[in-house]
Amino acid sequence: MAAPLANDRLLRALLRQPVDRTPVWIMRQAGRYLPEYRASRARAGSFLALCTTPELACEVTLQPLARFPLDAAILFSDILTIPHAMGVGLSFETGEGPRIARPVQSAADVAALPVPDPGRELRYVVDAVGLIRRELAGRVPLIGFAGSPWTVATYLVEGGSSRDFTRIKRLLYAEPATLHALLDKLVQATTLYLNAQSAAGAQALMLFDTWGGALTPAAYREFSLAYMQRIVAGLVREREGARVPVILFTKGGGAWLEAMAGSGADALGVDWTTDLATARQLTGGRVALQGNLDPGVLRAQPAVIRAEVLRVLQSYGRGPGHVFNLGHGIQPDIDPEHLGALIAAVQELSPVFHR
Amino acid sequence: MAAPLANDRLLRALLRQPVDRTPVWIMRQAGRYLPEYRASRARAGSFLALCTTPELACEVTLQPLARFPLDAAILFSDILTIPHAMGVGLSFETGEGPRIARPVQSAADVAALPVPDPGRELRYVVDAVGLIRRELAGRVPLIGFAGSPWTVATYLVEGGSSRDFTRIKRLLYAEPATLHALLDKLVQATTLYLNAQSAAGAQALMLFDTWGGALTPAAYREFSLAYMQRIVAGLVREREGARVPVILFTKGGGAWLEAMAGSGADALGVDWTTDLATARQLTGGRVALQGNLDPGVLRAQPAVIRAEVLRVLQSYGRGPGHVFNLGHGIQPDIDPEHLGALIAAVQELSPVFHR
Repeated sequence: MAAPLANDRLLRALLRQPVDRTPVWIMRQAGRYLPEYRASRARAGSFLALCTTPELACEVTLQPLARFPLDAAILFSDILTIPHAMGVGLSFETGEGPRIARPVQSAADVAALPVPDPGRELRYVVDAVGLIRRELAGRVPLIGFAGSPWTVATYLVEGGSSRDFTRIKRLLYAEPATLHALLDKLVQATTLYLNAQSAAGAQALMLFDTWGGALTPAAYREFSLAYMQRIVAGLVREREGARVPVILFTKGGGAWLEAMAGSGADALGVDWTTDLATARQLTGGRVALQGNLDPGVLRAQPAVIRAEVLRVLQSYGRGPGHVFNLGHGIQPDIDPEHLGALIAAVQELSPVFHR
Repeated sequence: MAAPLANDRLLRALLRQPVDRTPVWIMRQAGRYLPEYRASRARAGSFLALCTTPELACEVTLQPLARFPLDAAILFSDILTIPHAMGVGLSFETGEGPRIARPVQSAADVAALPVPDPGRELRYVVDAVGLIRRELAGRVPLIGFAGSPWTVATYLVEGGSSRDFTRIKRLLYAEPATLHALLDKLVQATTLYLNAQSAAGAQALMLFDTWGGALTPAAYREFSLAYMQRIVAGLVREREGARVPVILFTKGGGAWLEAMAGSGADALGVDWTTDLATARQLTGGRVALQGNLDPGVLRAQPAVIRAEVLRVLQSYGRGPGHVFNLGHGIQPDIDPEHLGALIAAVQELSPVFHR
């Protein structure tokens, strides 16, 4: 039924199969650094309207692919769609990040949270995935995603972004049972949500654990990794006769890559604070690795970008299992031509690592 | 001339000498969580007035010692005194953190920066150290400190606090020579400054590298660690017939502890994202370790605090070389009684690790 994939480098690399060159995609590749994105966002009126209108989500998802020879599309959406669907009053204030009107503060609040039905409250995401898949017509695979339970919980409990995670740390140390109940509910919601995305056409899935790095090693295992692991175990891993690879990314989680490699995920995201050579050693070939250029490199001139791309390729070294990416999202004030230089450098410099 | 130290646990632990129990002090122990600090600050009128008036700096330095049986005092000051003395227009906006009116943006800006004379532009710090030393009268040692060159440079270049370090990353990748020149100037200023602090009576010195964790491993070595190492090499290491121990603390630097152990510092600070057992293994007994309770633990009830204190003590294990601390500063909304519970727990639970 679906068109065969013309470019399957991403899926092959995520499964550590040989490729002709290192595939590349970029976190937040559909985003504010692109003038065409800013125009779509202005027409939509708000960030949430962009996320919740499948045609608009599809439009911005495809924008970077029209500019750059990327090896994957990633669904344009947000890690807070699940809280949005839970009815906690999500809004995005310009320049201030997300706000949650009714934060989760007690065991009663947790018990009252519904587990959204992806076919109803998150239907707009499922529809966007289907639409993007059709529009892609097999050019490159589509990545679906969600936030990790711990990371989504930080927003639910703090009521928005946080620097010190004061409320959720209180919960973690003073009322761990309440936090476990919240994380358990998020596992249920996220598993349903990601399975709905892959059923609708997402060919790989990624869990973003943006704030796992704020935890102690023991708390990371207990409150973040264990719950990501439960999601991975609950995912449908084969669709349309192909494996649906799963990527886990804990920002600031370099020290825990070894533990993450045993999670059942096919690939791990790595931020720029850990060398890929170290990450490869720690994970011992059990998983593919995705990353990890410092997003700040895109502020330099193309010759520097090229040299730093080579450094990342050399750090991973020869052989399959590497997906090139930044170590975190591209920042809004980056010149798109600099991203073009990055992608060209990966294309030109990586084949030798696969011979 | 100076009174002999009644409590030398901190200095002994920093030099990995036997002690009867683990010494404890707390980053930001003189700070906003104390009502008496808030009263002093209100009287002073501003945070900068508090830092720049020796009598007031002395007063707030001693406040936590009047409440808690701490094993050290730390000079009340700020890591931005050097930029202040360089004349870049430092101010602290309430609730917004530091602002620098004339950020450093070019090689010409760097060349124009003076190296402050600690006896003149930073005289207020030197005077505060002398005053605190006299007031302490040998009860516990006094720790002096400064920001690391990299960390201070982030404020100078960004013009204040930063999330993504966009300007200094541009400098790092696009104009590394300019950044090296700035760091070199900060090494000169910081070495003079710390030597002036120890000459005035500071018995241990600490370098706070709050933002070293934002760098790649290679950039950390080149732009942060190398410069801290130069400072360590330039410090007077013996005063009043005793060694002046030096502590380096890179927040988020768990992966680099091994490299840091070769810096010439006597001790390394460790944040809560790395277990002390791991840190001890990585550093192989070459340095003492300071840390590393998650500051969020202080939000829980005293019984939990006690259990988590024990976990940290057990993680370090038996033998000398551990200074108990949080993994980062105490937060402003913590109940002082909870800090009391932490200190009591260290006193009661640690002797067994030294038998």
